[in-house]
Amino acid sequence: MNILRRGRLSVEPDEDIANFTSSMEADKRIFNADIEVDRAHVIMLKEQGIISAHNCSAILSALEKIKKEGISALDTSYEDVHIALEARLIGLVGEDTGGRMHSARSRNDEVAACIRLTLRGELIDLMEEVHDLVATLLGKASEHYETLMPGYTHTQHAQPTTLAHHFLAHANAYLRDIERLRGAYERTNQNPLGAAAFASTGFPINRERTTELLGFDSALPNSMDAVSARDFMIESLGCYACLMTNLSRFAEELILWSSSEFEFIELDDRYASTSSIMPQKKNPDIAELTRAKTGTVDGALMAVLTICKALPYSYNRDLQEATPHLWRATDATRAAVRMAEGMVRTAKIKKENMESASDKGFMTATELADTIVRVTGIPFRTAHHIVGACAKAGTTPTLQDMDEFSLGILHERLSDRGLSEENIREALDPMGNIRRRNVRGGPAPEETGRQAAAMKKKLADTGKEIGQIRKKLGEASEKLEKVYHQYS
Amino acid sequence: MNILRRGRLSVEPDEDIANFTSSMEADKRIFNADIEVDRAHVIMLKEQGIISAHNCSAILSALEKIKKEGISALDTSYEDVHIALEARLIGLVGEDTGGRMHSARSRNDEVAACIRLTLRGELIDLMEEVHDLVATLLGKASEHYETLMPGYTHTQHAQPTTLAHHFLAHANAYLRDIERLRGAYERTNQNPLGAAAFASTGFPINRERTTELLGFDSALPNSMDAVSARDFMIESLGCYACLMTNLSRFAEELILWSSSEFEFIELDDRYASTSSIMPQKKNPDIAELTRAKTGTVDGALMAVLTICKALPYSYNRDLQEATPHLWRATDATRAAVRMAEGMVRTAKIKKENMESASDKGFMTATELADTIVRVTGIPFRTAHHIVGACAKAGTTPTLQDMDEFSLGILHERLSDRGLSEENIREALDPMGNIRRRNVRGGPAPEETGRQAAAMKKKLADTGKEIGQIRKKLGEASEKLEKVYHQYS
Amino acid sequence: MNILRRGRLSVEPDEDIANFTSSMEADKRIFNADIEVDRAHVIMLKEQGIISAHNCSAILSALEKIKKEGISALDTSYEDVHIALEARLIGLVGEDTGGRMHSARSRNDEVAACIRLTLRGELIDLMEEVHDLVATLLGKASEHYETLMPGYTHTQHAQPTTLAHHFLAHANAYLRDIERLRGAYERTNQNPLGAAAFASTGFPINRERTTELLGFDSALPNSMDAVSARDFMIESLGCYACLMTNLSRFAEELILWSSSEFEFIELDDRYASTSSIMPQKKNPDIAELTRAKTGTVDGALMAVLTICKALPYSYNRDLQEATPHLWRATDATRAAVRMAEGMVRTAKIKKENMESASDKGFMTATELADTIVRVTGIPFRTAHHIVGACAKAGTTPTLQDMDEFSLGILHERLSDRGLSEENIREALDPMGNIRRRNVRGGPAPEETGRQAAAMKKKLADTGKEIGQIRKKLGEASEKLEKVYHQYS
Amino acid sequence: MNILRRGRLSVEPDEDIANFTSSMEADKRIFNADIEVDRAHVIMLKEQGIISAHNCSAILSALEKIKKEGISALDTSYEDVHIALEARLIGLVGEDTGGRMHSARSRNDEVAACIRLTLRGELIDLMEEVHDLVATLLGKASEHYETLMPGYTHTQHAQPTTLAHHFLAHANAYLRDIERLRGAYERTNQNPLGAAAFASTGFPINRERTTELLGFDSALPNSMDAVSARDFMIESLGCYACLMTNLSRFAEELILWSSSEFEFIELDDRYASTSSIMPQKKNPDIAELTRAKTGTVDGALMAVLTICKALPYSYNRDLQEATPHLWRATDATRAAVRMAEGMVRTAKIKKENMESASDKGFMTATELADTIVRVTGIPFRTAHHIVGACAKAGTTPTLQDMDEFSLGILHERLSDRGLSEENIREALDPMGNIRRRNVRGGPAPEETGRQAAAMKKKLADTGKEIGQIRKKLGEASEKLEKVYHQYS
Repeated sequence: MNILRRGRLSVEPDEDIANFTSSMEADKRIFNADIEVDRAHVIMLKEQGIISAHNCSAILSALEKIKKEGISALDTSYEDVHIALEARLIGLVGEDTGGRMHSARSRNDEVAACIRLTLRGELIDLMEEVHDLVATLLGKASEHYETLMPGYTHTQHAQPTTLAHHFLAHANAYLRDIERLRGAYERTNQNPLGAAAFASTGFPINRERTTELLGFDSALPNSMDAVSARDFMIESLGCYACLMTNLSRFAEELILWSSSEFEFIELDDRYASTSSIMPQKKNPDIAELTRAKTGTVDGALMAVLTICKALPYSYNRDLQEATPHLWRATDATRAAVRMAEGMVRTAKIKKENMESASDKGFMTATELADTIVRVTGIPFRTAHHIVGACAKAGTTPTLQDMDEFSLGILHERLSDRGLSEENIREALDPMGNIRRRNVRGGPAPEETGRQAAAMKKKLADTGKEIGQIRKKLGEASEKLEKVYHQYS
Repeated sequence: MNILRRGRLSVEPDEDIANFTSSMEADKRIFNADIEVDRAHVIMLKEQGIISAHNCSAILSALEKIKKEGISALDTSYEDVHIALEARLIGLVGEDTGGRMHSARSRNDEVAACIRLTLRGELIDLMEEVHDLVATLLGKASEHYETLMPGYTHTQHAQPTTLAHHFLAHANAYLRDIERLRGAYERTNQNPLGAAAFASTGFPINRERTTELLGFDSALPNSMDAVSARDFMIESLGCYACLMTNLSRFAEELILWSSSEFEFIELDDRYASTSSIMPQKKNPDIAELTRAKTGTVDGALMAVLTICKALPYSYNRDLQEATPHLWRATDATRAAVRMAEGMVRTAKIKKENMESASDKGFMTATELADTIVRVTGIPFRTAHHIVGACAKAGTTPTLQDMDEFSLGILHERLSDRGLSEENIREALDPMGNIRRRNVRGGPAPEETGRQAAAMKKKLADTGKEIGQIRKKLGEASEKLEKVYHQYS
Repeated sequence: MNILRRGRLSVEPDEDIANFTSSMEADKRIFNADIEVDRAHVIMLKEQGIISAHNCSAILSALEKIKKEGISALDTSYEDVHIALEARLIGLVGEDTGGRMHSARSRNDEVAACIRLTLRGELIDLMEEVHDLVATLLGKASEHYETLMPGYTHTQHAQPTTLAHHFLAHANAYLRDIERLRGAYERTNQNPLGAAAFASTGFPINRERTTELLGFDSALPNSMDAVSARDFMIESLGCYACLMTNLSRFAEELILWSSSEFEFIELDDRYASTSSIMPQKKNPDIAELTRAKTGTVDGALMAVLTICKALPYSYNRDLQEATPHLWRATDATRAAVRMAEGMVRTAKIKKENMESASDKGFMTATELADTIVRVTGIPFRTAHHIVGACAKAGTTPTLQDMDEFSLGILHERLSDRGLSEENIREALDPMGNIRRRNVRGGPAPEETGRQAAAMKKKLADTGKEIGQIRKKLGEASEKLEKVYHQYS
Repeated sequence: MNILRRGRLSVEPDEDIANFTSSMEADKRIFNADIEVDRAHVIMLKEQGIISAHNCSAILSALEKIKKEGISALDTSYEDVHIALEARLIGLVGEDTGGRMHSARSRNDEVAACIRLTLRGELIDLMEEVHDLVATLLGKASEHYETLMPGYTHTQHAQPTTLAHHFLAHANAYLRDIERLRGAYERTNQNPLGAAAFASTGFPINRERTTELLGFDSALPNSMDAVSARDFMIESLGCYACLMTNLSRFAEELILWSSSEFEFIELDDRYASTSSIMPQKKNPDIAELTRAKTGTVDGALMAVLTICKALPYSYNRDLQEATPHLWRATDATRAAVRMAEGMVRTAKIKKENMESASDKGFMTATELADTIVRVTGIPFRTAHHIVGACAKAGTTPTLQDMDEFSLGILHERLSDRGLSEENIREALDPMGNIRRRNVRGGPAPEETGRQAAAMKKKLADTGKEIGQIRKKLGEASEKLEKVYHQYS
């Protein structure tokens, strides 16, 4: 009977029950982290005199062997990687040695440590991938400060803008996503080891040492919290959901822009599929799947929230069910970010179509109303009324039209208040509209250039910070490796 | 280059993109269904004169070979099982023959057919598993018509009831779940084949024939709807979420009842785990995972709802992302039902603890108030006031107490209105309480016996209906097999 | 102190706590139902000899007065409408009479009855509103059997279809929604009264009588289930979410079709808004809100699922928090259906734009490939390859092009296999494509006419069924009214 | 006709449509913020010479009047508070003056500013409320460093702990919630004003000035992002969901601890309700509703995620539907935190019951195994086996038992390896167990005292930071007030 159940329980679960209970499939994800955690724990046990140098050395060597064999060599009849690994260890070095590794700990703190180690790595990689997406958007923006396009509200032509302005809008959202991920990282990279089942242990352990060897920023201050908490997972999932929602909006645009009706871009063939029946089709499947993965991530968030709801402290087996959702959502989010970056980087921009669309839908109406306000001094609301009436009529506005409508509404001619054909012509020029929108945040080329420069600086800082985190983790990893070689 | 992309597209996606796009992993689930669909489609094409008998025979034989090889033999660089299978077919029999199978159809109708065929099988199995759970609950109930236990509201002792009454409450909920699944089955077992991309086809196909050969109840009436609709998936997921919510409530009770504080049951060792550190532990892990899987299923529902939201007609690649959620939720739900059945079937009921708990918490207070109403004729609300005051005092009520409180509240002694010590003693007897609750739906043993008998009849009808569905599908399957042998 | 708390509890909650606990705001929704339930209960109590004719009459008259005063006249310091109403009753007729109404029941069965009565009314109204939407779609379809439009997959031009075909696709989905709502109605219209707290009662009540007087289809068979179950709510919310997902897809199309890029329709001004700053704007706000309300309904479903998860039996106060989500979702769904109906009914269809768009994007490529298959006998996959290469080249296909591509791919000229210019011209004609798609479910005018006729019949049956339900409920209501007058 | 629609649109929506479109109900929440935004905008317009001092003064005075009248005085036939307020302004001062307020802005930037202003206030209040909850938990913990209680895993007795340790575990989680809210605050308190519809404006506005007057930390760098982004809402909702999940776990414990089975606490009567039928009941309704509101908040998060999914830039009317979910979730979360604080503050702790429960379930088994390891030098896994066998037997372990089991398992007597009766007695003492768990994070009284002290310091820093934010906002508010008086 298995090394866990042999004492307290008298029968083994049948296969259906064992499958229901097992986390071995999802544990593939934390196998490497589990080896690291085992190493650091065993080293600490030895340094604290809880196990002998001899036992330490034997265990460390066996762990190396187990690592090399990989998770697939473990006995999958065990319910999780932790106990399967311990069983394998005992198989290799005997219970008298291997049976000491689990001193002063429980799977509760062990699994929390494994998840946190694995997740922090994913979070850094994801931050870097979002960083790259922003970099690509900034690069593309720099080619399109003067690329005119329709700006939309309600999917309707609203006012002219530029592709640079549009790309920078998305880039700003993704920069905030990096900030959020940074917060999630901080609350993830905390050491639960030493909490044991939840009440810590009577053995004289040293939690600072495992914190240092595993590159955690600090040790969680309360041992019951350390094994019960999954808010770090929920926070990461919340960040993913936010990021995916932002991405889904961009993906929707890529889909629309690729349509026959818009024809603003052509996605690279690598990011397109065709049809099994319709030979002419070039479909934006990658953008559609990016959009769809938002649902996958939202569902994972909802799953984990629902799973964690109302669980009394401390550990409950329910928490095992939460973890696979985290990995699924992590994979979906990271891949979606890479796809978005690739699509932007490789898409062909059809500038001429964007520009010619900018003449449709009377998008300069606001500027015309503003011009009337500035030239004639009438209130904006009245100018809005006059230009609105003109839009309803559907004609291209001339001074005569303006006068006619203003006569009906204002009982005055706008030309009598100084409005000229020249004023109208200027107001109706899309590029003129854009150049005039030179206030902070606006689409004027000069201003979008300034925005991009400021963002580039911010992005560089972000890149530096990611580098520093990687360096810190690398140093901890080297230290663990060194001590491991010293002791094994 | 692959047989789909070679015409229209000029480059292949790199590995990261291909992984993002591929559904091969999830398609394992529909591989068998795909073979069935191919068979029925090819037979129909031959019967309609769209392909020759010779080509039909060659394709059918090759499909048999592909089926035997299994999905793992297919080229996984293709984006889905449908096109990988066609590519393999062409590899086996040449394009001049194999290139004809996809005549008059598209992957859009094909995949919808595969999902529907696979899902209908899962739904029947699930209905049967819920049927078995209800049967087990009815069986257990029949042993506990007189097993006294505390009934709870707000997790507080409320009124005495019996374990039979409690088990029958859950059984009623699961019977409704079967009804809902039945509705989902009806709307799933509809044939989308022949819809092709969404506009059907100019070939003279026969949709009635594939409907018959695949055991569908009928053909979907509109070809655009046939490929766009995923409401059948949402409906199934909604049924699962409902069922899992019902199950989670039962699982919660099993967990509470297994605790040191309740000690109402002991789960069988097969349905329990122990701790890696705490040797005394016997944990209700299976019940906890059953509870947790509710979150998994809710998350899958939310994922699919979010994925499908606002997709314009007809097919979008987003729909591919929805399907794996369906299978995950299906597996989780079916397994949870089986676990619940097994836990109930094997749990040791600690009758004596249930009964002794029934003396705690003054659960007979309602009957005492009712008795006062019946004997003395005072209004219920006043009796409630008097008994409430008595409960607040925390004493076991005697006639003297009652009189004292009623003097304060009613300015009368209840004994002056006929209340006797005997009345009080009778009202305070838990089993007496239960026997008096003999109205329809109540816990009196006679009444729960009647309820159980009525449910057994209903359950037998359900079982019969499931059997008839299986028979109908079996007959279609045999017919397809027979025609297949005739033509191949 | 209040009539409930005066016995058992010694202090009143402060305002913050009272607000947290109170359901008075949401109870507005069930006030009328509560009066009905009170009436039926009191009549039954009298008929069973549990209260006197005199008390019955006094209570019924007072209830009439309370009904007329409305819920706003009740004391809002009570935590819910049930106890506030009882308190008001006691205020009107004294505790000696009014204090008898709550005999043999609890708020647990009372509130379940109120929610079920109210919900069933909403469900019927909703079914009728969806019925009307389908009727409008069928009506519109009948005007557009020959209105050519691009059919889309992946938001890309795919194959030509007709507006009738497209409208019928949506109508089919809504017909399934009605079927689902019908199932929800059946499981809603069940009587929980008589379950009392959950253990029924020792009073000799008659559940069949309240079932009859309140128009329920039957009484719930188990009293614990009767007060614990909220699966009927989850089922309704699941139906709403499904319906809203279907609606959101149509709303998305209305938005796209209203854009400058598509210009397929113009929504009526009533269903549009303009901008506070951009005077030219006509925005499809109603369609956008319809789309958005999907999120509102999905959120409500998720809220109720999460609330109900893992609640031990029987009643828990958590259930109170679930109900307002039901009403919010009901309102959102019903309004969205009415808006969709109104938008379709009043929108201006721009046939000419739809038709001219049907020439874009080489949508007849499939028919061209099919034609090649039929004329030359080459396999579909090969024809797909040839036409795909042609599409990639971007030219309008001529026989010469076809021959050239087929030479490269097939090493043969298609013209040598009999393909003629005439064949190609016919294949490229969009309306010809459609007429050829005359199989069941297809877009050919004859076939969509047949589909519409079949649906009209089905819709008429649905309308009849709704009418019968209304009639049954009306008769119960009249009977209750009559008995009420007899007894009061 | 209304001042917005009169130009472009020809008919008014009917009442059903108007109700569907209107946000007036939810806009109550932002009415005050709207007045502030109007003030700051008008002051800036005047300072930039866009409107005259005279018009500025007239508008500011009218705004004061409108503020005093309140939102209920506005014409509710308008679709939102912004346009209703402008209409009222025009009604008061005429269009020639009032019609100028909306110069250089749109409702798109206006509503984003209003939501952000209102939300930031809620976030600060919430942070303070969570701060108070942590303070109360720390205070209570300080009374219970030596209050023994069972620690649970899987809702099973696991190891002894103290109430202080348990309360500090929750307090740690809430401290992280404050950190998350702090991040949400930063990304909320950004100024979108000046973005106008999304493309900023041609008027020479000064965004730094409105940023300063409204106390925003900075202006959003891109005008399209400024009106499109709702990630700040999603982030806040994500924080709420995380916090509520943490709270729900505590609420669940309060419910369990109040049960007859646990009897660890008695909630104050203010935080309890009774039953309408069962006079003895004292129910933990507030804790149940706290638990349930988790579902409400999760549902709101899901609603907003679903609403925002795949919306193309920039503003879409869908965003209006998102806001009410934010306010509902904000109210639910804030109230739940206050309820939790009150329940903890006022609950009666039944120390004696907690302590006597600590003897049940052989919770000292881990310490017994650890003791065996320390005394006899056998491996932990073997000691776990022996003690597990002993637990299965269900006897209180004696040295003789231990020897017997170890003979069977280890073929040695533990007493031969030095284990004494004294060792066993010490290991079985719950308080001894706790004192020995003195490592960082553990339950030993000395250590929990240290933890509490460290947290108190951290909490004081948090309180100081909240104070500084309030001060900064107060100063901005005073400045705006002062300029307002100067100009009006």
